[in-house]
Amino acid sequence: MSAGIELDITRMLADVIGQDNGVSRDSIETEWYRVQAVIQGLEAKRKAGDLPFYDLPDDVETVQRIEDYASNARNRFKNIVVLGIGGSSLGAIALRESLIPFSNSFLPDKTENGLRLFVPDNPDPEYLGAIMDLCPPEETLYNVVTKSGGTAETIAAYLTILTPLKKALKDKYHEHLVFTTDPNKGSLRQIARTESVSTFSIPQGVGGRFSVLTSVGLLPAALMGIDIRRLLNGAANQRENVFNDNFERNPSAAFALLQYLSDKRHDQRIHVMMPYANALYRIADWFRQLWAESLGKRRNLQGDDIWAGPTPIAALGATDQHSQVQLYIEGPNDKTFTFLIPKSFRRELKIGVHHRDIDSMSYLAGKNLGTLLLAEAEATQRALTAAHRPNMAFILEEISPEIIGGLMYLLEAATVVAGGLYGVNPLDQPGVEDGKIATYALMGREGYEDIRAEIEKERNRKPFIIH
Amino acid sequence: MSAGIELDITRMLADVIGQDNGVSRDSIETEWYRVQAVIQGLEAKRKAGDLPFYDLPDDVETVQRIEDYASNARNRFKNIVVLGIGGSSLGAIALRESLIPFSNSFLPDKTENGLRLFVPDNPDPEYLGAIMDLCPPEETLYNVVTKSGGTAETIAAYLTILTPLKKALKDKYHEHLVFTTDPNKGSLRQIARTESVSTFSIPQGVGGRFSVLTSVGLLPAALMGIDIRRLLNGAANQRENVFNDNFERNPSAAFALLQYLSDKRHDQRIHVMMPYANALYRIADWFRQLWAESLGKRRNLQGDDIWAGPTPIAALGATDQHSQVQLYIEGPNDKTFTFLIPKSFRRELKIGVHHRDIDSMSYLAGKNLGTLLLAEAEATQRALTAAHRPNMAFILEEISPEIIGGLMYLLEAATVVAGGLYGVNPLDQPGVEDGKIATYALMGREGYEDIRAEIEKERNRKPFIIH
Repeated sequence: MSAGIELDITRMLADVIGQDNGVSRDSIETEWYRVQAVIQGLEAKRKAGDLPFYDLPDDVETVQRIEDYASNARNRFKNIVVLGIGGSSLGAIALRESLIPFSNSFLPDKTENGLRLFVPDNPDPEYLGAIMDLCPPEETLYNVVTKSGGTAETIAAYLTILTPLKKALKDKYHEHLVFTTDPNKGSLRQIARTESVSTFSIPQGVGGRFSVLTSVGLLPAALMGIDIRRLLNGAANQRENVFNDNFERNPSAAFALLQYLSDKRHDQRIHVMMPYANALYRIADWFRQLWAESLGKRRNLQGDDIWAGPTPIAALGATDQHSQVQLYIEGPNDKTFTFLIPKSFRRELKIGVHHRDIDSMSYLAGKNLGTLLLAEAEATQRALTAAHRPNMAFILEEISPEIIGGLMYLLEAATVVAGGLYGVNPLDQPGVEDGKIATYALMGREGYEDIRAEIEKERNRKPFIIH
Repeated sequence: MSAGIELDITRMLADVIGQDNGVSRDSIETEWYRVQAVIQGLEAKRKAGDLPFYDLPDDVETVQRIEDYASNARNRFKNIVVLGIGGSSLGAIALRESLIPFSNSFLPDKTENGLRLFVPDNPDPEYLGAIMDLCPPEETLYNVVTKSGGTAETIAAYLTILTPLKKALKDKYHEHLVFTTDPNKGSLRQIARTESVSTFSIPQGVGGRFSVLTSVGLLPAALMGIDIRRLLNGAANQRENVFNDNFERNPSAAFALLQYLSDKRHDQRIHVMMPYANALYRIADWFRQLWAESLGKRRNLQGDDIWAGPTPIAALGATDQHSQVQLYIEGPNDKTFTFLIPKSFRRELKIGVHHRDIDSMSYLAGKNLGTLLLAEAEATQRALTAAHRPNMAFILEEISPEIIGGLMYLLEAATVVAGGLYGVNPLDQPGVEDGKIATYALMGREGYEDIRAEIEKERNRKPFIIH
């Protein structure tokens, strides 16, 4: 049962793109036992309750609470602004781009289905300021999303919007806030209790980049008018196969194995994801965090230095044919390509019949615009294959909440399998601590005076400036 | 004279990040002669008229024509929609994002300074359809941009919008069109003559990815209300140093050499450009085309197979600290990093003073939001350096037309120098022909029947589908 998502791996194979560049059918067979071992380990972990993201599709109680809250809020507000960064923002953005028409945010008012979503996921005063201009406090709900309650960028944005919010709304300001955070701990939880702000919880053990199907992604989705039950149903459909022992019936594990073998055996460690639909581009961007932060690890599970991690890239077809494909075809054979190709579009446009006498135009006249886009997808697959570049494609029956929920779930499952193959912990991110600490020091946080002194000393190093 | 742009290369150097990973001062000295040879070759070419992009800042006649046209059009229209792809769209997008407030496109009307710009740079019916919804024919000017006049995606979009345009505007439809194309040849030029459509020319010898400072980028810029003379002045300022014989006075050549040496000597062939400002993100995306399409080449100038080309990546600070920096710090040391850091922002926001009793919030209260963003830039530079990752930074005095025009010019000059170092032709793109031909075949264009038959045969190959 494919549930609307198929993975075509034909063009990853050695017998199609060549022994030096493709994965052989033999190596799939001989290496599959490793995947099986990883899957068994994951199954055991899940049973022990240590991999709760697998079971998010079953959390009907949260779904009901979100729907109740959202149906009320959709009547009261025009805009939902998510203050979050990384795993607290990328999922909501991906859901907006894939499931809400591009035009909706540009309309002066909400649609009948849902609110306009803005996500100022950077402490950039020009960017946050522009969004504040677009969203008057009276019409806006702010969803502050941070698991720890202490993410510097998110807290800074929250404190920034709080001043105009309190000024405009007086003692009603807390009705324009909703927090998504740890169920028990952290500063947001503490504030919510004393100032009676509505809250949603991020389940224990679900990290930011695996949280799109928790209230982190589902609350903004419901506020935009997306049917979140359909998202979760799609995820549940894909769940049926994530522990499947059969390579040909387990797209997430097959994807993980092919990427891993391409990296290890053919040094193809740049992993390009290239949707052929604007709506799917931010799925590739969301995947970029998932893949990079999960697999980019200095140490393996034994604690040895391995400095592992493929580098994900998000590209967009057909647009990037005019930007990146020259390199993809003629540059080093150091990449794999994963296309996301919908079978059709939710809306079609007819290419008009004009200038029939001009050869470079007449072949297009009267066809569907989407037909051209899908022809370009096939042409690019063909060109990469002719150049011996490994490429595979997720073929999507349609772009719908079920397929998007399913695809994201499938990619999350693939990521933890890949973590097992690389021998790393896909759920932590120890490498970003240094930067956080330096930021605290530079911002004058108490307790970081020594680091601050160190930085000041380094600043005195004579720089080499070209000008 | 820095003219507002400095390149800090301190953290690229072996004595700062280690011998195995950094470029030594010795190798800069010993390799600089190669750059000098390249520069001399470019200077000679320019004198012979073969590198016209260097002299675009002097084209005052075109500037005047654009300004006259734009000041009139800004009164007549609300929206400018650019139909173009790759080099015909990325420059305009980069200029919008860097020099026009993010909120402007979301306002229901144009501002007093200029029109709203939309760029449907993909033959995606959902995306183009959404933009057509937002831009009624009566209020909209369509700028069709294709040098050859035959780019399939652009022509398809043009034919698609032509039907509603003619229907709504009858015999006035051509007043809502402006073509940017070859001065003499091609189908758009032909149509412009017979149907009296306004046109602007792309100068001979200036390829798409080097065309932002021609009418390709300048016309949309002027229509948005950007002062295009300031853009060109900034470019002219940078031009003074592009042939400078002194490494320390030539940022474009220094950038090219450092990237080249990092690739060749340390296998750092992923080149990340990471602005710390949302406004600059699309500059990195524009650079992605410039760098990839210019250097990603199968053959060197002697015709030998070399499969060259670093892979550019656009990242955004601080956002991608929560997505990619884990990989950047702990993954393979196969990347260089180029930060774009403005010294200040055009607008500041004060982080509000609230929750003074909470430790994870109080250190932020009362500071500028932009101070946090710049602290994060410094923290990330520091963390990468501690992890022995080569990183440099373009420090921008401000975000202004002069600096943006100058930076883009500087990066174009760097790209042709890098082409010389890699030994490839940075101005062609032979690798994308295969895909174009397959697209013609799939769309049933006359003369491509054989290719079509070949594709049909391949389609019969038994696929390997996982589902």
